[in-house]
Amino acid sequence: MNKEFEFLKIISDTLTSSSYLGDDCAYLDEYKLAISKDCLIENVHFSFNFMTPYEIARKAVLVNISDILVSGAKPKYILIGLSGKLDEKFIKEFYQGLNDTIEKYNIKLIGGDLTKADKLSISITILGDYKNRNISSRKNAKKDYIVAAVGEFGSSAKGLEDLKNGLKDNYFIEYHKNPPLFEKITSKIATLTKNPYAMMDSSDGLFDCLYQISSKSNVRIDVNYDLIPKKIDNKNLVLFGGEDYCPVICLSVDDFKKIKGLIKIGVVKEGKGVYIDNKKVDYRGFKHFE
Amino acid sequence: MNKEFEFLKIISDTLTSSSYLGDDCAYLDEYKLAISKDCLIENVHFSFNFMTPYEIARKAVLVNISDILVSGAKPKYILIGLSGKLDEKFIKEFYQGLNDTIEKYNIKLIGGDLTKADKLSISITILGDYKNRNISSRKNAKKDYIVAAVGEFGSSAKGLEDLKNGLKDNYFIEYHKNPPLFEKITSKIATLTKNPYAMMDSSDGLFDCLYQISSKSNVRIDVNYDLIPKKIDNKNLVLFGGEDYCPVICLSVDDFKKIKGLIKIGVVKEGKGVYIDNKKVDYRGFKHFE
Repeated sequence: MNKEFEFLKIISDTLTSSSYLGDDCAYLDEYKLAISKDCLIENVHFSFNFMTPYEIARKAVLVNISDILVSGAKPKYILIGLSGKLDEKFIKEFYQGLNDTIEKYNIKLIGGDLTKADKLSISITILGDYKNRNISSRKNAKKDYIVAAVGEFGSSAKGLEDLKNGLKDNYFIEYHKNPPLFEKITSKIATLTKNPYAMMDSSDGLFDCLYQISSKSNVRIDVNYDLIPKKIDNKNLVLFGGEDYCPVICLSVDDFKKIKGLIKIGVVKEGKGVYIDNKKVDYRGFKHFE
Repeated sequence: MNKEFEFLKIISDTLTSSSYLGDDCAYLDEYKLAISKDCLIENVHFSFNFMTPYEIARKAVLVNISDILVSGAKPKYILIGLSGKLDEKFIKEFYQGLNDTIEKYNIKLIGGDLTKADKLSISITILGDYKNRNISSRKNAKKDYIVAAVGEFGSSAKGLEDLKNGLKDNYFIEYHKNPPLFEKITSKIATLTKNPYAMMDSSDGLFDCLYQISSKSNVRIDVNYDLIPKKIDNKNLVLFGGEDYCPVICLSVDDFKKIKGLIKIGVVKEGKGVYIDNKKVDYRGFKHFE
């Protein structure tokens, strides 16, 4: 069993009142603000062996922008906390990567803090606005919904594998270091859909998205492997490789028809579990605590 | 020179556009939300030698609530990220401390994440609402303003000293572990003042507050040592001891008269620097990076 789930159960039992243990983003409905926080730790989420401070900052920010995009909101503000053995050179490169990335997405840095520590950890809080937008929840999948996706699954995991094998600067390594985000299509989904929908990014792999949506929505999800957009032919990486940040969406047939560019990879059925090519697949996603 | 200031200068030079390098809180004026983030690291900000997981959680939350209170906002939502060698017992105690504290202040936990790491780090984001409230900025002090304070300066630092000397369970140790917050008086200041004012808590010591306000507002601050509320007679701890979270406020004479319970400790003058009993005092506050 996955330790993180156990811990979340303990937390949920301990709290008198809370409804936070669901989606990656919390929604402040009074303000129409989505908010997400994330902590990235050296040698757990990234390594200086493979990436420069500039690249680490860029990716840390991209990961968090993606969380907001798949919530259905528009990213607006970011706060960054940095702990580590900080020096001038690191700070300069890191904030250059940060600056270039938030500028591209028109996001404003509004706060943060710096702390001394042995290892680098990056803590990010990001806020997005969802005025006049339909927001997603992984509880929203329903029978007969379409399972859709965009991007290329497994490319980032392939890049990490290549890095670990000592390769340099190929297509997949570039993809791993600087994953593309899906700003336009997620924005279309949030503004054009009329029915509730579920959307996640494949930060922990495609299968993890399907599994989370299936269990939170209490539905069966059937995917056809051949329909999954991908550039590699490695089932393990395509299904379980993380850090792609490709949107995975369950939405109504009507809504699906409205959104150009979405690729249908499966359907939602009554029942439980995730089926790939009619075979039930078990949870093997990235497990933080095992 | 203080390293943190150097780093902030580099960051500010690197960013194309940002206005974040001032107060502890960022203000989202469109939503009337104040937001603050903070990262607490094992053996830098707290130690398991002196405090239980319950106490560490409680204090981490109190510190952040105080940031919102002295901004002038009302704390509403909190997000917690936890990294460390987490186990069931730790999680249970930590979240119990968290739960009891946020319940007391009517704050809702809306998100967070758990990550494996060698040392514990706690990353907190807290949001407060400032609709119909006058918010503070350390740039707001003006000539002829009153310098006011409440609480007891130096008690927390005395408690930490006692802990390090092997003492147990005295008044100051309790104060250090569970510092009182000043919810009512900060709320009065935010709702009753008409003019701009500067308010900080003494998380890094009374002198640090005076120094920050003096340099950001470009004014001289004169304090009379005897007027400072305190329960100990140790000038070093009273002026430079941190973790008290006592509000230090510079406000207009008119506004000062409206707020019952504020103690006048000095005045704001034209000029530069912080003077205690007419003697200029240099910066010796807690320096994270030295």
